[in-house]
Amino acid sequence: MISFESDYDNGCHEAILKRLLMTNEDRATGYGLDDYCIAAKEKIRNACETPDADVFFLVGGTQTNATVIDSMLASYQGVLAVETGHINVHESGAIESSGHKVLTLPSHDGKMDAVELEQWLHDFYADPTYDHMVFPGIVYITFATEMGTIYTLAEMQAISRICKEYHLPLFIDGARLGYGLMAQGSDITLPQLAALCDVFYIGGTKCGAYCGEAVVFPHHNAPAHFFTIVKQHGALMAKGRLLGIQFDTLMHDGLYFKIARHAIEQAMRLREAFITRGYKMYSNSPTNQQFVLLDKDTVQRLEKDFVFEQWYPVGDKMNCRFVTSWATRPEDVDALIAAL
Amino acid sequence: MISFESDYDNGCHEAILKRLLMTNEDRATGYGLDDYCIAAKEKIRNACETPDADVFFLVGGTQTNATVIDSMLASYQGVLAVETGHINVHESGAIESSGHKVLTLPSHDGKMDAVELEQWLHDFYADPTYDHMVFPGIVYITFATEMGTIYTLAEMQAISRICKEYHLPLFIDGARLGYGLMAQGSDITLPQLAALCDVFYIGGTKCGAYCGEAVVFPHHNAPAHFFTIVKQHGALMAKGRLLGIQFDTLMHDGLYFKIARHAIEQAMRLREAFITRGYKMYSNSPTNQQFVLLDKDTVQRLEKDFVFEQWYPVGDKMNCRFVTSWATRPEDVDALIAAL
Amino acid sequence: MISFESDYDNGCHEAILKRLLMTNEDRATGYGLDDYCIAAKEKIRNACETPDADVFFLVGGTQTNATVIDSMLASYQGVLAVETGHINVHESGAIESSGHKVLTLPSHDGKMDAVELEQWLHDFYADPTYDHMVFPGIVYITFATEMGTIYTLAEMQAISRICKEYHLPLFIDGARLGYGLMAQGSDITLPQLAALCDVFYIGGTKCGAYCGEAVVFPHHNAPAHFFTIVKQHGALMAKGRLLGIQFDTLMHDGLYFKIARHAIEQAMRLREAFITRGYKMYSNSPTNQQFVLLDKDTVQRLEKDFVFEQWYPVGDKMNCRFVTSWATRPEDVDALIAAL
Amino acid sequence: MISFESDYDNGCHEAILKRLLMTNEDRATGYGLDDYCIAAKEKIRNACETPDADVFFLVGGTQTNATVIDSMLASYQGVLAVETGHINVHESGAIESSGHKVLTLPSHDGKMDAVELEQWLHDFYADPTYDHMVFPGIVYITFATEMGTIYTLAEMQAISRICKEYHLPLFIDGARLGYGLMAQGSDITLPQLAALCDVFYIGGTKCGAYCGEAVVFPHHNAPAHFFTIVKQHGALMAKGRLLGIQFDTLMHDGLYFKIARHAIEQAMRLREAFITRGYKMYSNSPTNQQFVLLDKDTVQRLEKDFVFEQWYPVGDKMNCRFVTSWATRPEDVDALIAAL
Repeated sequence: MISFESDYDNGCHEAILKRLLMTNEDRATGYGLDDYCIAAKEKIRNACETPDADVFFLVGGTQTNATVIDSMLASYQGVLAVETGHINVHESGAIESSGHKVLTLPSHDGKMDAVELEQWLHDFYADPTYDHMVFPGIVYITFATEMGTIYTLAEMQAISRICKEYHLPLFIDGARLGYGLMAQGSDITLPQLAALCDVFYIGGTKCGAYCGEAVVFPHHNAPAHFFTIVKQHGALMAKGRLLGIQFDTLMHDGLYFKIARHAIEQAMRLREAFITRGYKMYSNSPTNQQFVLLDKDTVQRLEKDFVFEQWYPVGDKMNCRFVTSWATRPEDVDALIAAL
Repeated sequence: MISFESDYDNGCHEAILKRLLMTNEDRATGYGLDDYCIAAKEKIRNACETPDADVFFLVGGTQTNATVIDSMLASYQGVLAVETGHINVHESGAIESSGHKVLTLPSHDGKMDAVELEQWLHDFYADPTYDHMVFPGIVYITFATEMGTIYTLAEMQAISRICKEYHLPLFIDGARLGYGLMAQGSDITLPQLAALCDVFYIGGTKCGAYCGEAVVFPHHNAPAHFFTIVKQHGALMAKGRLLGIQFDTLMHDGLYFKIARHAIEQAMRLREAFITRGYKMYSNSPTNQQFVLLDKDTVQRLEKDFVFEQWYPVGDKMNCRFVTSWATRPEDVDALIAAL
Repeated sequence: MISFESDYDNGCHEAILKRLLMTNEDRATGYGLDDYCIAAKEKIRNACETPDADVFFLVGGTQTNATVIDSMLASYQGVLAVETGHINVHESGAIESSGHKVLTLPSHDGKMDAVELEQWLHDFYADPTYDHMVFPGIVYITFATEMGTIYTLAEMQAISRICKEYHLPLFIDGARLGYGLMAQGSDITLPQLAALCDVFYIGGTKCGAYCGEAVVFPHHNAPAHFFTIVKQHGALMAKGRLLGIQFDTLMHDGLYFKIARHAIEQAMRLREAFITRGYKMYSNSPTNQQFVLLDKDTVQRLEKDFVFEQWYPVGDKMNCRFVTSWATRPEDVDALIAAL
Repeated sequence: MISFESDYDNGCHEAILKRLLMTNEDRATGYGLDDYCIAAKEKIRNACETPDADVFFLVGGTQTNATVIDSMLASYQGVLAVETGHINVHESGAIESSGHKVLTLPSHDGKMDAVELEQWLHDFYADPTYDHMVFPGIVYITFATEMGTIYTLAEMQAISRICKEYHLPLFIDGARLGYGLMAQGSDITLPQLAALCDVFYIGGTKCGAYCGEAVVFPHHNAPAHFFTIVKQHGALMAKGRLLGIQFDTLMHDGLYFKIARHAIEQAMRLREAFITRGYKMYSNSPTNQQFVLLDKDTVQRLEKDFVFEQWYPVGDKMNCRFVTSWATRPEDVDALIAAL
């Protein structure tokens, strides 16, 4: 069986394993205060061109979203996100669990529309009863989105401008950041993204690591005692070196971006094959997640040799997801294309 | 420098690394539903002699304590623990963060006294105003304790009996479970411990793994939808295989217990050397954490070649902690003994 | 100025004031354990024809919603409500503050549609990823709704049936219960309503009392230690007699329903006058809240002598709310009709 | 039966009832924005000599404590209080319910010791692991305390000075503020108290009102959107006039202080009688709560004609509480003295 099930059904990139082997005998202090973490943070600051950034390593995405959002909200504030946002759908209520409402905007293939955001904020403050409502306190977007789509630089600038106008921090969930930055046609760089937002994270789990998300406050603007907030949310790893070593490896010599580029290349080969053969794509994704509508027979035929997710029926077709990663070999894609 | 700083300042046991290498090319589904996790769970059930146990893998201790305790309490209930309990001191309020009070009993070298527990419960229900107070909802003890001490089988049976009498689940924090079970003079086995409590965990992070705690509900008594509760607490690892592989390795052929036994042997050598040389031990610890009172000169002398923690002054001495683990080589202990 | 601003801009019904005067010299124990509360609870049980009901008195609506919902949900569960539901809009996130998500369905003039509810529940459990989502744990509807509309007996039976099928308790927010039961054309009685749901409340604040909501668990099904849960939510009144006296008066000799009937009569006179004069009603409300679309000139003219709320613009008209209560005198309505 | 059970087992002061009668026909907008509330706030500012103070009316004590403390803490901070503090014992975990730990200091007859507070704070920041602990975020004291005792001006100045030094707001629970200020030998005035703290409340429920606590931020220092925070905590009364009218009456012409002085006078008569007759007082209370040790026979004899609380046994005696209020008639005290 060849798997296109997800970008986290593999182990970790071999360079990371090698590094774990090399460092295993070393002793290192706990909780992310070790030299590997220090080195990894410096590499991240360089890559982001944000020499003063505060950087923290957490373990997984849901945990990171809940910790960051809770750390930046007052008790009476909520987080603005699109309806399909990961925090609104697939995190078992982790945001509400820390006391905050997810305030929703329409999703456009997973993306937030700047004009709708502005209108929402205008309407909120125009409502004479807003004192009885949940105040917006932060804006959450994903890059790349859950649908595989990406924001253009202009779109992200527009959202950033509105956030500044309304004094709302902008938070970018980068669980798939590498794939977003390396996407076909992406016109946004890591330093540009860092400059436009107040906090974001560089996703490790889905981009070559075994686990780990690197939270970046680009403007030396981490909330006071963020270390303690991470601990309180159960998100502080005792052997922080595990995260430090992984990110130090990924950020070394551009490995993180090479991994993402490889996955994108394989995804684009796949996409082109689907389109050429007349299949209808469900979303216009330039990233490592491809959504395609397949009829029942095709699904059954492909299932024999390939692993992929069936999301939900669309008309009489099934919306199927094929995901690539560092672990996707070109010959795997060849095989799938041949089978189409 | 030779380190006795902690049992989590090392990498992971070489058998785990080897296994990670061997399995890295495999594909496995996420969230702990993979074959490594399934195999590891089965080994744990066997070791505990609890064929029906529900087993879950979480990442770290604070997270595990908060998730388990919240899952077993009603909103108006709190958790009974000794004052020095990890949840009451060193978890940044993670328990309170999920809405629950830590109700405290005196600590006796880190241990709860069964008689005092019974008295507390009796007094609570004898108080005519108890409806205005926080109800006890679960009892939390650690094994081995934060002070390195352990409960005897009789002591644990006494606590278990009182818990049953008051319909309170008993939760054992086993972050250092291996060291407790293998402690010098310990008269309690893993199956006995599993039978006496309602939930406990087998600590991986401090006993050879890079990360991971295996939560065991011995009597097939996990709260409904515990999987979702884990996710909600940000404690569900996407690449659950990382935890499965580690525990499958640790539970294979008794490796977990061998690791612990090795650490205990080295700790006992150290302990005997301290005592023989006339140093005063701060606590009577039969486990891998040794607390000894050292004068300033000795501290300064040892600090040149050894890493260890200075906890707090006791009179004109400093209470110092020396910790052993799988990574402590006999020659490290020789060196320290020579330096004493 | 004659006020149609709200049903809580008045004092309290004179019968209540008289009763407060009569009882002021009495001594009574605190926290709702006094004889007035006991008597009021008995009258409520009689009126509901639920001899075993558990009854509690809380102070206000938001507090009651948050306390009841939190008491009946597990940590990983949310509450199903329509988008316009009070808990989703105008309670400043009180539900999320206790850790729970509000899961929303479309609003039909403030009402939930049974078919849509069933479809939502079906879809939820059909989604293979539901373990990563917020589980539905209770269904919340309002009677009468925020839009002044009411459910028919058949509609409420349909919702109740689906709740039973999915093992979800049904909670009816009765902040305006009197107006719902006495509404023009209402075909549902208090005992029928009590039989169909798992918990509801009889709103006092908006129906003649100074404050107070009577929570009824009709089937002796209050969560364990609900008294303590009320206290924990800051909703337990020290001088509970204030609530007991008010409800004992309201439930005596049908006063609660007389008050509601009076308000409905005045609202219907107003409604008929609006319609006769060609004004367009915004919603089809048979209760004490009337929503009508007025042009700017009419608004300005009426504002000189009358107080009423302007909700939001609809096209070039303003959706205006006129509310009646026990304190609305027939001559007030005459004056408004004359001014139209 | 003559009652000394509590200071909330009565109705309300007759001046309040009279005022409720007089104003009942008036219409007033909701949520504390009415003219009665505005007038009452102005009287409070005058009495406190804090012309810029922010004043809010909440319903009861537990609710007020939870709302104020939550509004002033970051998520990772707790509240410092003595072990016997109301928030630590008798509020069913309302503080923890909003996510915060109660950090405890020893109680000295209900009072916090400034030297111990300073030592605690010094030790906290001296602990190298404090980043893993709950940070102190506010200091909570009660005046008068749960034991009937009061702070001298010098004691309160000492606490206030330490709070300022450590940048911790000082919060005074004034559920029995009147009795504290009017206590025998009290050397502190309302303006002095207001100047020394960051937030306090003037308790209405236990001092003549039916309900209501007036929260005062003396230095125009209410947290942003405190109105919304109150609403979120379910503590915003729809008919806010009920609270406004009561406080406007209590603060008119010193009624609040007259009520307290009357209660103190009766309590002191009682106290003197106890002492003269050789009874041993349990605490040295100069306020309206008197604690006295009675033997079983005396308790049984007095119970026939008087209502009072038996707190807990002390040796072979019972610690009994006798409470006076505005409703305590001199002849009631005469009767009790005669019975001793």
